Amino acid sequence: MAYSISNSSFLLSRPSPSHKTSLAATSHSFLSLHSASTARQFSSLSAARIRRGRVCAAVAIEKEVPENERPETFLRSADPAAVSTSVRARFEKMIRDVQDEVCAALEAADGTGKFKEDVWSRPGGGGGISRVLQDGTVFEKAGVNVSVVYGTMPPEAYRAAKGNAGADNGGAKAGPVPFFAAGISSVLHPKNPFAPTLHFNYRYFETDAPKDTPGAPRQWWFGGGTDLTPSYIIEEDVKHFHSIQKKACDKFDPSFYPRFKKWCDDYFYIKHRGERRGLGGIFFDDMNDYDQEMLLGFATECAKSVVPAYIPIIEKRKDTPFTEEHKAWQQLRRGRYVEFNLVYDRGTTFGLKTGGRIESILVSLPLTARWQYDHQPEVGSEEWKLLDACINPKEWL
Amino acid sequence: MAYSISNSSFLLSRPSPSHKTSLAATSHSFLSLHSASTARQFSSLSAARIRRGRVCAAVAIEKEVPENERPETFLRSADPAAVSTSVRARFEKMIRDVQDEVCAALEAADGTGKFKEDVWSRPGGGGGISRVLQDGTVFEKAGVNVSVVYGTMPPEAYRAAKGNAGADNGGAKAGPVPFFAAGISSVLHPKNPFAPTLHFNYRYFETDAPKDTPGAPRQWWFGGGTDLTPSYIIEEDVKHFHSIQKKACDKFDPSFYPRFKKWCDDYFYIKHRGERRGLGGIFFDDMNDYDQEMLLGFATECAKSVVPAYIPIIEKRKDTPFTEEHKAWQQLRRGRYVEFNLVYDRGTTFGLKTGGRIESILVSLPLTARWQYDHQPEVGSEEWKLLDACINPKEWL
Repeated sequence: MAYSISNSSFLLSRPSPSHKTSLAATSHSFLSLHSASTARQFSSLSAARIRRGRVCAAVAIEKEVPENERPETFLRSADPAAVSTSVRARFEKMIRDVQDEVCAALEAADGTGKFKEDVWSRPGGGGGISRVLQDGTVFEKAGVNVSVVYGTMPPEAYRAAKGNAGADNGGAKAGPVPFFAAGISSVLHPKNPFAPTLHFNYRYFETDAPKDTPGAPRQWWFGGGTDLTPSYIIEEDVKHFHSIQKKACDKFDPSFYPRFKKWCDDYFYIKHRGERRGLGGIFFDDMNDYDQEMLLGFATECAKSVVPAYIPIIEKRKDTPFTEEHKAWQQLRRGRYVEFNLVYDRGTTFGLKTGGRIESILVSLPLTARWQYDHQPEVGSEEWKLLDACINPKEWL
Repeated sequence: MAYSISNSSFLLSRPSPSHKTSLAATSHSFLSLHSASTARQFSSLSAARIRRGRVCAAVAIEKEVPENERPETFLRSADPAAVSTSVRARFEKMIRDVQDEVCAALEAADGTGKFKEDVWSRPGGGGGISRVLQDGTVFEKAGVNVSVVYGTMPPEAYRAAKGNAGADNGGAKAGPVPFFAAGISSVLHPKNPFAPTLHFNYRYFETDAPKDTPGAPRQWWFGGGTDLTPSYIIEEDVKHFHSIQKKACDKFDPSFYPRFKKWCDDYFYIKHRGERRGLGGIFFDDMNDYDQEMLLGFATECAKSVVPAYIPIIEKRKDTPFTEEHKAWQQLRRGRYVEFNLVYDRGTTFGLKTGGRIESILVSLPLTARWQYDHQPEVGSEEWKLLDACINPKEWL
């Protein structure tokens, strides 16, 4: 694998505007993990707080700085969990291993494209590795990012996470709650219209125990998922993909696949279109009602399943002959992908509004996309079949 | 001009998903005027209400139905303002005249492209005319829409509009307030990278006097603007465009141009990029602190200025030779246009979340767009100069 380091600092100075209509106009930098789980915890609360301009003190974290080398770990050396046996450390190791494996498999499948790497850190701890392969032979754009974030959450968010948001804390004034979050996030857009787009994201979230409430528990949860977005339905591919997801789920709990398959269909819903962005897979969030070791094992199994679920499909479809019409349809579906990510995806919208690393967040967008007024596929056509499956989710197994 | 009527009903049935994470999942249809002013009035309130799932009764309006012919007026026949002298009637006539003029001028400039027309109405009154020219010789996509909406707004929104949102209405329970809104909205995307994109939108909003508060005033306001989004700065074009805006403003008040020029620079701000989507123009909203006839005249003057402000630029630049690199840069800037419209534009985000006519709302998106990871124009290049002007707005006159 060929990795290069690039400097991601801005060439031009970017002052904030003063107008009342801008969202959270401030030069502070905020929590920016590209993670739906983190976003979920803050979304309702932070939106209102940001509007009132009071969020800065609550979730402000440092601006990232570019690094020349990948550190051994992004865990703070002072973090008591910075021992190799902690869940934090094992989760970070897992996502970094998976990043290496997936990038190696993608470069091998692509043949010519190489990942470009940006490493960044925050002075007080945490950081990330963004890898992007752009304009390869097989892939139009493939991004595979890992990140580790230390931040503080408002006490209300901590209480909401515990499920007692309304509690008044016995009259004591609760302080902000430190948290840790780590995740891997990836979107892979091939060039060939018969080769599907893949997205996966696995994340772990943990708060410190609040200092002002002795005995209050430390909170933790897992989230993630892997989903497939083809432009055309090739049933054997969709079945293969879903069967690998089911296999990973079934190793842990037979209820997981049906539950997380439905959750995925519901989550990736483009409400204003009345359709899903693709043909689903699995999705779960806020998972803490199982043994922690079991869930770490489950997230690991899912993340390790990305290569066997996806690469065989790419190998089969990367050279399928196609017409301009096939490409135009793929581009229209890519437009839907952009709509979902910019309008609904929690990680993206949260990241954009709170000052995350923009190039990492928006690496999920395709290299090119298309919007055609009032496009209606002919009834019964292959395009229509895909759209029908996006509107009426199917059971593939 | 060649107009054709097409049926815009869906080919496929689109059930709503049941999952908790979907936004305002409901089969109701809501206020859908593609208008920043309307959205502004509801945005803060409705977002919270929609989250709480209680907005349905408050702003629900009927679903639109396709029509075969353009009616003489979209005003309700029972509307006391359905006389040709009312502001409602004169504003509707003005926007429909401007729609005709602009479409005729665009077809003439394009040479081959023809507008396709969709007419729609709501059974209880109101409706719209959407016109789109797609894949012409000069224009990639040009949409020019007018719409008229009758709806009801929650009493809190009415009070907020009056500037006394906190008032408790003397203990009386206020009912929903009927409103009327009309607007023209247009985005014009040419093919040539040296021919700029244009957006304009003019709208008028009026509430009925609330029945349960005798003597409470009827509220009204105007909003709108015209702004230019080139991929390359051709200074004589930008100066010509801004000088026409200034001339229209100066006829009414010398403070208008500097004030609305700044408002425009502030409004079309892509916060997560730290840059504006283009080189601005004028923008104003909630305007009711001048004589109503004066503001109707001002909105009319601005709307009538679109053709002289834009068509001469198109005539000069439509055949300028360009390279693949010029086109790729234009496509990247089109990506920024998509980001602004889907993430920040009030009319778009409000329309998407409340069930407006999607094809009309998203006609503002370019036919094609591009996202390239970490693209940095070379310092001093023409691309860099454009980006610099988007980051640091300039005075053009």
